[in-house]
Amino acid sequence: MNWATKLTDIQPFYVMEVLRRAKELVAQGRDIVRLEVGEPNFSTPQAIIDAAHLALDKDQTNYTLAQGSLPLRQRISQWYGEQYGVDVSEERIIITSGTSGAFMLAFGIILNPGDRFAITDPGYPCYKNMIRLLSGEPVQIPVGPQSHYQLDAAMLIPEIKKGLRGGLITSPSNPTGTIIPDRAFSQVVEVIEDSGGVLVSDEIYHAITYGEDAKTALQFSDQAIVINGFSKYFAMTGWRLGWMIVPQNAIRAVEMLQQNLFISASTIAQEAAMAAFDCRDIFAEHIKQYDKNRIYLIVALKKMGFEISVEPKGAFYIYANISSLLAQCGIENSQLFCERLLEEAGVAVTPGLDFGVNGAGEHLRFSYATDFARIKEGIVRIAKFLGKTI
Amino acid sequence: MNWATKLTDIQPFYVMEVLRRAKELVAQGRDIVRLEVGEPNFSTPQAIIDAAHLALDKDQTNYTLAQGSLPLRQRISQWYGEQYGVDVSEERIIITSGTSGAFMLAFGIILNPGDRFAITDPGYPCYKNMIRLLSGEPVQIPVGPQSHYQLDAAMLIPEIKKGLRGGLITSPSNPTGTIIPDRAFSQVVEVIEDSGGVLVSDEIYHAITYGEDAKTALQFSDQAIVINGFSKYFAMTGWRLGWMIVPQNAIRAVEMLQQNLFISASTIAQEAAMAAFDCRDIFAEHIKQYDKNRIYLIVALKKMGFEISVEPKGAFYIYANISSLLAQCGIENSQLFCERLLEEAGVAVTPGLDFGVNGAGEHLRFSYATDFARIKEGIVRIAKFLGKTI
Repeated sequence: MNWATKLTDIQPFYVMEVLRRAKELVAQGRDIVRLEVGEPNFSTPQAIIDAAHLALDKDQTNYTLAQGSLPLRQRISQWYGEQYGVDVSEERIIITSGTSGAFMLAFGIILNPGDRFAITDPGYPCYKNMIRLLSGEPVQIPVGPQSHYQLDAAMLIPEIKKGLRGGLITSPSNPTGTIIPDRAFSQVVEVIEDSGGVLVSDEIYHAITYGEDAKTALQFSDQAIVINGFSKYFAMTGWRLGWMIVPQNAIRAVEMLQQNLFISASTIAQEAAMAAFDCRDIFAEHIKQYDKNRIYLIVALKKMGFEISVEPKGAFYIYANISSLLAQCGIENSQLFCERLLEEAGVAVTPGLDFGVNGAGEHLRFSYATDFARIKEGIVRIAKFLGKTI
Repeated sequence: MNWATKLTDIQPFYVMEVLRRAKELVAQGRDIVRLEVGEPNFSTPQAIIDAAHLALDKDQTNYTLAQGSLPLRQRISQWYGEQYGVDVSEERIIITSGTSGAFMLAFGIILNPGDRFAITDPGYPCYKNMIRLLSGEPVQIPVGPQSHYQLDAAMLIPEIKKGLRGGLITSPSNPTGTIIPDRAFSQVVEVIEDSGGVLVSDEIYHAITYGEDAKTALQFSDQAIVINGFSKYFAMTGWRLGWMIVPQNAIRAVEMLQQNLFISASTIAQEAAMAAFDCRDIFAEHIKQYDKNRIYLIVALKKMGFEISVEPKGAFYIYANISSLLAQCGIENSQLFCERLLEEAGVAVTPGLDFGVNGAGEHLRFSYATDFARIKEGIVRIAKFLGKTI
């Protein structure tokens, strides 16, 4: 049996291999500092857990409507007013099975076979794989420090001339943690929409920012598709709950596709998430701790020769160029560097290859969603591995 | 903005329109007997709820591995031994976001653009819509009473000659509640696999059977893809949890696709589901009550002129031919019949059109996953509507 040929274009996540090997080493009794996982180290706040208990006791376990529970959609609508000053009616909001579910719906309503869709390289690997699954063509646009690792209008124009169905902005970005400048954001929205395309904005790392707020695409256009969810800022990963906001004329298509692909999102998670908006003090504390990690890591890494050209101002990632370190150590590329760092120093990080091909061999991603003490320990080990002092 | 053209092939569920209108009428103060919804009327058993409480208290809310929690996969493996006497190693089991999630993975690893895939007409509407989303071509094979509304080898052979990537069996069937005869099952598996195709078996209504067990495809082949979940027999709809069993050589592809499309299924639901296998006494009681409804409905409907050619032996559906009733009432088709039954008699049922085009205008689906007293009330109203005595 040969499985679908498009699967050959879908790459596994190398971070999963790192994770697997890290777990093997732990099973062998090794202590591993885990700086590879993109998951908050904080538990879901108690108020959310309590709301879930209540939902269970009230037997709220049936299907919801395809678009999701009305009170939750109303609460999210309110959030857009509070956070961004934009008015989003609840009918444009659909509750999804994580942002993953939202992306399937977004690409599902956007793409016909062969449609070209712009994403950044480096970028979150699932985008291109979903696009390929739907027989679309991901157009991976190389981005670097000069554009904050984000799209800009100038890069898009030649692709629009070749025919582009739309493009995706992730700000703050995974893997770089960088935020798209306002001017670039508005211009990207403009060139895409002027050409009849669709702008999709992945805003899952919104509100995890350090000194600079991330704008929502809805501040630039009500025709954009916005995707967000409860996994990162709200610390609800395993609950699998997200949302999307679509233009008025896409509501029916998205609802129909949701019925067919998912029926509805988890009911208990939807009930629990109602409490999430009242936990902002706790989330502010999380961000304070992330920021402490971030500042420490940036300074320590730079001191050892990791190049961080654009300060990451959001998410919990640092994307570092290790060209000079590779040369110093005589290691061929970042995958081998990661392997040796794991085996020899007991520190797990993600190689650039997970995020594309553009400079992938010379980059690593650090996730700092972990305890400060572990990050310090990681730095001590990396320094020793590199023969540096910190 | 025009959305993806393949969406124009995706139809909404008419049952959702029925549901919407039913809710409007209820809001106007009307009492509506709901025989349209395919959702168990029983709550999730307390032991499962308790397991979910425990998971919340133990803070089990992080992502699981993509393939799902190991203890749950082991428990499902054991279930296959207990229920069917087949040996399924846990590495072939993947935990999904409902059976919906499993179908996306199955069609995702099977279909290349243009691949033809056989399903029954009538059948569950999501199959064809998912196949279309992936740019495959659903081959809707008309089935009727002569084959228990199931595929048989003779129907498939001409399609296999035209090129068929595989086929899908749903037994017990939605909307007909009929079970595929063993001989037909084994022959369908054989002709599909001999031609190099993949047999997918939707076993979501397994264990909801009346006097006759449904076989799993794994009793005929270890190359089949089996899909099941916790929504029907286990009465866990809103938890969104399912599973699939794949051949050894598909494990890697499915795991990779799960990572990309879903990350993982709900962690709380996975923890709760561990308790589901110890609630069999409760489920046996559910089935006893479904069976009481089933027997009563079959007799009453037949008496009024609804034609039920093959006794439904599973699920909680009756698919009735209403040709003679349409003639008697001077109503053009089953959609109009449904509309008038809802408006005039206050009984909601699903028109055949939701399940395909083959005889759709002359068929209705009754769901009897509801209280016996409500079913009796529904029958009284239908009799009055038709001017019959019961």
